[in-house]
Amino acid sequence: MLDQARALDASDPLAEYRDRFDLPDGVIYLDGNSLGALPKATTERLQQVMREEWGTDLIRSWNSADWIHLPQRVGGKIAPLIGAQPHEVIVADSVSVNLFKLISAALKMQSGRRVILSEPGNFPTDLYMIQGLEGQGLATQRLAERNAIVEALDGDVALLLLTHVHYKSGAIFDMAALTKAAHDVGALVLWDLSHTGGALPVDLNGCDADFAVGCGYKYLNGGPGAPAYAFVAERHHDAIDQPLSGWMGHAAPFEFSDDYSPAPGVDRLLCGTAPILSVSALEVGVDLIAEIGVHRLWAKSRALSEFFLECLAEAGVDLPLVSPEEPMKRGSQLSFRHEEAYALCQALIARGIIGDFRAPDILRLGFAPAYLRFEDMARTAEELADILAKSAWDTPEFKHRAAVT
Amino acid sequence: MLDQARALDASDPLAEYRDRFDLPDGVIYLDGNSLGALPKATTERLQQVMREEWGTDLIRSWNSADWIHLPQRVGGKIAPLIGAQPHEVIVADSVSVNLFKLISAALKMQSGRRVILSEPGNFPTDLYMIQGLEGQGLATQRLAERNAIVEALDGDVALLLLTHVHYKSGAIFDMAALTKAAHDVGALVLWDLSHTGGALPVDLNGCDADFAVGCGYKYLNGGPGAPAYAFVAERHHDAIDQPLSGWMGHAAPFEFSDDYSPAPGVDRLLCGTAPILSVSALEVGVDLIAEIGVHRLWAKSRALSEFFLECLAEAGVDLPLVSPEEPMKRGSQLSFRHEEAYALCQALIARGIIGDFRAPDILRLGFAPAYLRFEDMARTAEELADILAKSAWDTPEFKHRAAVT
Repeated sequence: MLDQARALDASDPLAEYRDRFDLPDGVIYLDGNSLGALPKATTERLQQVMREEWGTDLIRSWNSADWIHLPQRVGGKIAPLIGAQPHEVIVADSVSVNLFKLISAALKMQSGRRVILSEPGNFPTDLYMIQGLEGQGLATQRLAERNAIVEALDGDVALLLLTHVHYKSGAIFDMAALTKAAHDVGALVLWDLSHTGGALPVDLNGCDADFAVGCGYKYLNGGPGAPAYAFVAERHHDAIDQPLSGWMGHAAPFEFSDDYSPAPGVDRLLCGTAPILSVSALEVGVDLIAEIGVHRLWAKSRALSEFFLECLAEAGVDLPLVSPEEPMKRGSQLSFRHEEAYALCQALIARGIIGDFRAPDILRLGFAPAYLRFEDMARTAEELADILAKSAWDTPEFKHRAAVT
Repeated sequence: MLDQARALDASDPLAEYRDRFDLPDGVIYLDGNSLGALPKATTERLQQVMREEWGTDLIRSWNSADWIHLPQRVGGKIAPLIGAQPHEVIVADSVSVNLFKLISAALKMQSGRRVILSEPGNFPTDLYMIQGLEGQGLATQRLAERNAIVEALDGDVALLLLTHVHYKSGAIFDMAALTKAAHDVGALVLWDLSHTGGALPVDLNGCDADFAVGCGYKYLNGGPGAPAYAFVAERHHDAIDQPLSGWMGHAAPFEFSDDYSPAPGVDRLLCGTAPILSVSALEVGVDLIAEIGVHRLWAKSRALSEFFLECLAEAGVDLPLVSPEEPMKRGSQLSFRHEEAYALCQALIARGIIGDFRAPDILRLGFAPAYLRFEDMARTAEELADILAKSAWDTPEFKHRAAVT
């Protein structure tokens, strides 16, 4: 399969972009869905932000480097990747904090309704933020299995909150159909695009979505813990009322008024001062992904994962696939079940192949197409086959769990 | 006064630390209370975080570089600067977001009480976060002038929320006395240390304070929009229940459970993933301030501001001082009233002296003692006297206001 892989790499129109990332030698990185790789331009840009903007221009950079509009600027660049208008997206805080803002806003808009509907096994923080509002006495969580969500929608549901691409399985929800089903009962919809943005195209406005949030540190390559983004459809801009009403979301923050008055549009989602170094790093990642183009990225990611499955079959590996078999129905990842998935993941890492483990029994391999090669697929399949054939994962060393798994 | 200034600089035990900062030539920077200067070590450290931790070790750095405990590690280093134990302080989010968490937690602990008492003219975001909870129907804001706060404390007050050093005037509240007065009526106290931490010593535990928040980008030199910190007295660690219950505050985030269960102690104040680049930059600033020592810093800042007032008197400048005249009663700043304070500030900036303007009529000069010289005081007084004598501020150019004032 290695020859075939090399031929595919030779004709890959995205092959040139691998060199735009700073990747360690001897590593096959299949965890870009957890932490995207470092764009080479990021280190240069951050040097500039530190030395010129912070060090030299100091406080003046709020105007001269336009730090004050950095959240809007980067949000506007993310917008076309997710089917939004530039003024509908802003960079702020974390996914969790943005979920809290938008769930709260939805509850305010839906007076008389307090149910937030989601699925069990959604990414935990999505559920935890609903539970935070439950603890405040303002919301009621309702969970329905993914094939029973439409039936669980009724006139009590204020908001349907779903993650578009499931973090564990990679399964994609039908955004258009579910948004319509929610709207049919008067519910709003909030999409978590953490495993979508930068990996596959999505059309928020085409689907008539109300709200969305997404992560900056996965397929957008914004760096560890990069700030997140939030989307509010233009039609809701005047209705948004959210409780994290910090001074940066004020209509006139530098008037230092005692009374909060929200800024227009998505600006009112801002709360405190944005972490400029981290948002600047995110901008570089977003620029690079936008340059490559999200349609081309998704096409390559499907080709990579399909080729990987062929390589596995060729090598006689038959791990149960948890992800959908149909490539159009999954995100940029493949997840496999193995009862010792943690140890299996560690055994791969020891051979320079970095995937990740998701409790309790999932080996998750992400195919960030901006910097992966078909050759990486062939080699990974080969090593995985060898590890399984020899039960090389079955050692105390590989079973010992670190703080972060 | 210049000779006297140079003599003072020659005998200043902190003079050597100026060289640890990357300061632009020809600039006197009197705005470290808004954005602290760049420590030279920060650019090197961030290069290392980007190239080695992110670029090379990638996702493994959550364990190998201990990113997962970075919020606790940096919080623990801030703790001795504010009279806290290391496990009582954590770095997270922004001041605004942390205010929301702790006001919410206080309301939960004080069932039956819903008044949050503060002062008019407090830093706006402090009031806006109370108002955010008012909008949720969970709190009632009560404001009392600073000399009437004790009288405004009664059995309805859940929490007294004050900023220790006032952002505009620099006036210091008596933390011990006000904390005791609040406790006497059963109220909890939350101190905003944004203009305190790293500038003057404060003894949270000695004053029996309950909660505190503070800013990373002023006297801690953490960089633009650096993450903030939060303090919870150990005796409240088990009682804290806050609604921004994100996955990083979960007792076992990597078990990916559907149900939120708070981590012990201040860890439960974490919400989303910390912006590692920005927190890493903050750590460098905190290390440097801790090395210099906050008692020495405050002594020098008082000497600087007293000397500056002497220089002004010598130069015949008689701008009304808004800050307390007694140096022990003000933070590391001097604020003056002038009806065209904005233009006056711009005229100073045009001469390389960067202070700031706070609406509507305050010229605020900050004396970050880690990198300022007595010579800077003499020169600033000289230029200010000249600008005022010639009304050099009175031009359309200096009156034109930018987005950030």
